[in-house]
Amino acid sequence: MNNTIASAGNWGPKVRSDCEIKLELKSEGGIAIDLTSKVQALYGESIKSQCLEVLEFFGIKDATLKINDSGALPFVIAARLESAVKQLVRTDLEYLPEFIEENKYSTASDRFRFSRLYLPGNTPRMMINAGLHSADGIILDLEDSVPPEKKDEARILVRNALRQINFYGAERMVRINQGEMGLGDLGYVIPHNANLILIPKCENSESVQNVEIKIFEIKNKLGLTNPVYLMPIIESALGVERSFEIAKSSEKVVAIAIGLEDFTADLGVTRTSEGKESLYARTRLVIAAKAAGVQPIDSVFSDIGDMEALKQNVLISKSLGFEGMGCIHPRQIPVIRRGFAPGTEEIEKAINIVFASEDARKKGLSVVALESKMIDPPVVLRAQQTINLAIKLGLLTVNWMDDVHEEEK
Amino acid sequence: MNNTIASAGNWGPKVRSDCEIKLELKSEGGIAIDLTSKVQALYGESIKSQCLEVLEFFGIKDATLKINDSGALPFVIAARLESAVKQLVRTDLEYLPEFIEENKYSTASDRFRFSRLYLPGNTPRMMINAGLHSADGIILDLEDSVPPEKKDEARILVRNALRQINFYGAERMVRINQGEMGLGDLGYVIPHNANLILIPKCENSESVQNVEIKIFEIKNKLGLTNPVYLMPIIESALGVERSFEIAKSSEKVVAIAIGLEDFTADLGVTRTSEGKESLYARTRLVIAAKAAGVQPIDSVFSDIGDMEALKQNVLISKSLGFEGMGCIHPRQIPVIRRGFAPGTEEIEKAINIVFASEDARKKGLSVVALESKMIDPPVVLRAQQTINLAIKLGLLTVNWMDDVHEEEK
Amino acid sequence: MNNTIASAGNWGPKVRSDCEIKLELKSEGGIAIDLTSKVQALYGESIKSQCLEVLEFFGIKDATLKINDSGALPFVIAARLESAVKQLVRTDLEYLPEFIEENKYSTASDRFRFSRLYLPGNTPRMMINAGLHSADGIILDLEDSVPPEKKDEARILVRNALRQINFYGAERMVRINQGEMGLGDLGYVIPHNANLILIPKCENSESVQNVEIKIFEIKNKLGLTNPVYLMPIIESALGVERSFEIAKSSEKVVAIAIGLEDFTADLGVTRTSEGKESLYARTRLVIAAKAAGVQPIDSVFSDIGDMEALKQNVLISKSLGFEGMGCIHPRQIPVIRRGFAPGTEEIEKAINIVFASEDARKKGLSVVALESKMIDPPVVLRAQQTINLAIKLGLLTVNWMDDVHEEEK
Repeated sequence: MNNTIASAGNWGPKVRSDCEIKLELKSEGGIAIDLTSKVQALYGESIKSQCLEVLEFFGIKDATLKINDSGALPFVIAARLESAVKQLVRTDLEYLPEFIEENKYSTASDRFRFSRLYLPGNTPRMMINAGLHSADGIILDLEDSVPPEKKDEARILVRNALRQINFYGAERMVRINQGEMGLGDLGYVIPHNANLILIPKCENSESVQNVEIKIFEIKNKLGLTNPVYLMPIIESALGVERSFEIAKSSEKVVAIAIGLEDFTADLGVTRTSEGKESLYARTRLVIAAKAAGVQPIDSVFSDIGDMEALKQNVLISKSLGFEGMGCIHPRQIPVIRRGFAPGTEEIEKAINIVFASEDARKKGLSVVALESKMIDPPVVLRAQQTINLAIKLGLLTVNWMDDVHEEEK
Repeated sequence: MNNTIASAGNWGPKVRSDCEIKLELKSEGGIAIDLTSKVQALYGESIKSQCLEVLEFFGIKDATLKINDSGALPFVIAARLESAVKQLVRTDLEYLPEFIEENKYSTASDRFRFSRLYLPGNTPRMMINAGLHSADGIILDLEDSVPPEKKDEARILVRNALRQINFYGAERMVRINQGEMGLGDLGYVIPHNANLILIPKCENSESVQNVEIKIFEIKNKLGLTNPVYLMPIIESALGVERSFEIAKSSEKVVAIAIGLEDFTADLGVTRTSEGKESLYARTRLVIAAKAAGVQPIDSVFSDIGDMEALKQNVLISKSLGFEGMGCIHPRQIPVIRRGFAPGTEEIEKAINIVFASEDARKKGLSVVALESKMIDPPVVLRAQQTINLAIKLGLLTVNWMDDVHEEEK
Repeated sequence: MNNTIASAGNWGPKVRSDCEIKLELKSEGGIAIDLTSKVQALYGESIKSQCLEVLEFFGIKDATLKINDSGALPFVIAARLESAVKQLVRTDLEYLPEFIEENKYSTASDRFRFSRLYLPGNTPRMMINAGLHSADGIILDLEDSVPPEKKDEARILVRNALRQINFYGAERMVRINQGEMGLGDLGYVIPHNANLILIPKCENSESVQNVEIKIFEIKNKLGLTNPVYLMPIIESALGVERSFEIAKSSEKVVAIAIGLEDFTADLGVTRTSEGKESLYARTRLVIAAKAAGVQPIDSVFSDIGDMEALKQNVLISKSLGFEGMGCIHPRQIPVIRRGFAPGTEEIEKAINIVFASEDARKKGLSVVALESKMIDPPVVLRAQQTINLAIKLGLLTVNWMDDVHEEEK
């Protein structure tokens, strides 16, 4: 840490909502700030005063600071400046923006996870309105979308995003890096209410358990009680071979996903649209997930221009037993949600089961039966969930039970 | 057991060969029987005298008995009355009808099991002529076809059926219930020469071993020595995941079957006629079965009207390695048997192997070879079975060896 | 060993490059040789003198020897005579022909194994020019292509072939027999630089480990240090069920192969050209192999007349992840090699990875990244191999790196 010059953030023709910061420590002369920004007239002073506050927070008294701003929000500027500071000064301090109340929700282990939108962890522009697209989950990605030299920056940006951006009820997910680096990532996200951690390139139970233990330690230290779920991503032949073992490696695992880009690369085969090369792996993963009682989640569909092909893909995916799919563009979300949403027949079946259960309850029977067949409690629960979702999606009214009774008359 | 009124059996416009019994215990007045039956003129007296015998057997001296009979055979009437009695009186006594000699056969572990006909365990009408259809096996079902409130009745009816109905050499199978209830079922069927027990919704070795132990205890207590085989049914993702483990869980397991209705429900997918959603599970089960040296048995085909579709289904099933399939209607049996029966090529191959084996035996060779390839003893045994079956099915004459030699001249 | 008459080798209208030997031990009269050969004029004397040398080597002084020669090379004649002698005389001596220098190479564990040509182990005619066809591997087969009564002869012939026939760099493979006989085979091939042993009908780790131990003992005793790799062949349902376990049973395993003729027989199904009956097994084996880090190798294609069908077969095979295939006729080799060779896209990807790696090396970076994604070291290694192979196959020049740089200018 003998350097005196550091830079952080991004700047360029395609960059928006971000800033590039160059910080040089001096031995005297106080703080000098050189800001270039399109919003200088409106926000120039507030940007500068924020920077002064951050520098003071980290005890820096003499420095020159050059900022190229393309419309960064305060939490982004703060993140970039903190990143630059930490390249020059050894400190455990964190300059945390306000944790907005809207972000302090938990999610249920068995909630539907039809769509989850991937956001590169070092690209503020894509994060800001991500919550408007009604994805079931939002993934702040620290792994493959972040180049190695930007990993540190991304951690701080994602941390601030978790505190500041309202995702409107979407499950707040973070994809950490593999191995040790991933365990290090957790310190930046667990204290800020990440609902679910995606574990990439998962090949064994230990890697899941390591993440579980690390999360436990962090929560324990901070006295946190919110649940944090795990979703291992299977991206190799070895991962597929051990998918059942991985799916049941921890009670915190609520889903396992397959990542076909890496999987087909590991296999050394070309990924095709029919997907014959991965059918075995996908179906095996579905069985492994269901056998372990967790949700099987399909890979992203990479052709973001072809909505019809995506729709077909979702149909096949659902027909094989998958319960969701990754998204790499917001426009994929409605197609995927509609595709995985319960169909008419499914809703009717759920209605029948819930009725039978109601009926049994009223008659004081301990066993629910439908057409002479016993219905297990998890099936009833699942049916109730299907109905709740149908209501949420506008496929049933809140008063569906009365409506159905009405019809029967 | 403070009730004094009980009923058992079935009565209604579609019910035949059954009776409904209403029994009320009295403190005095002897036995009063009120019988309604189409066959009253012919059998009225004998029905009444049988009822008196049953009541006397259970020590009941004062009661009113109302019987609505739709042509029930004596063993059905006895079963229904015993069921009613046991709702009112705590007793370990069993009123057992004669065990006919024709029912005292055993079956071989490696016999062909192409077709097995499901019979609801509480529906006498379907049992009575079931043996005439030449199914390889007859299943008296105590599980899904029997509603929870009829489980007790069904046990007694099935017990009596096992003693009284001639199934003409079909393997005598019983599908028990899951878990503890299933272990209880065994006491009603093992003493009456059930050849094979189907274990539904099997998900682990323990459930198979529990059945095995219970059977051992029952046989041991009664000094029975007949073999009782096991056929676990795989009906969930977890069952598929553990299919190999289940297939080799006990030496008594001779086959494993897949039940696709429940399996697809467990997976949350729609069952289609092409069956893409279950291809993985089916082929995996075939491999698991063969790897464990047991027969893989396919699911029932539910469209009982479409014989052509059934035929295609059997062809695919056989091509994947299945060795049999369940039937839910007698008319499916001949199609299934023909489909799984050895084809011309298969018979020729078997002939060649048996000849090579004969040849080796005559020459005093320890190793059987066919076209420079060694033939393992199980392969020879299997070929001999194929030939035996071909003879049984009329595809070869008993003197086939001479016939073939003749041709070669 | 009280016989005095023995015969070895083959003779007949279709036999070439072989000889049949009849040896009768006498108690007096010296050696009498009766030679019939088309090449008698040219080689008659040298054949006889070789036979005298062999007999002297084994201490035989009095015998009559009848030779029907169809153009056998000296190492074949020597093998046949040794086989005859060993039927009559108990001895541990081996009459070893010269071990030519060209045969003393080792192979790399990760070399490409696109094509491997099966040669029946007791048929000299097919061995002699086998090296000219550029197969990646040559298999001298002691198993299914050798009838039981010829096993001993084949061992000696294969041993001599390993010392004398130049296979021009093809990997020198031997398929041994199953079980104990196979362990016995090893003594005839390990001392003579077999590069790889194929283990047929492999169903568990122990059978692989037994071969590994036996090889270790032989090498240890003789002070050999050359690597000997293992390729288990999966040919049964049980083998498929345990394919992952088998693939990782020993560090010496470099590949696992599937043998579909025996596999479909074990399953009791007909082998079709579409192969639906084996798709599960093949894809499962691919995953098992890749998960264990070894090469998955496909079954032979048996219709040696249909090159177009073979080509299609190779395409599918490669698309599923297989990295090679067996050959039963030399004409299949070029089709298979071309099919499995890296395609244009694959080569370009490899070029990019190697460039990125070069780039990282020059910049002193510890991590290789390509388009923001980290590249693991094994991926770089594999890319380098692809490029080496492309060069070998004439798809890239040795100076490709300069050529590509040139293009970019």
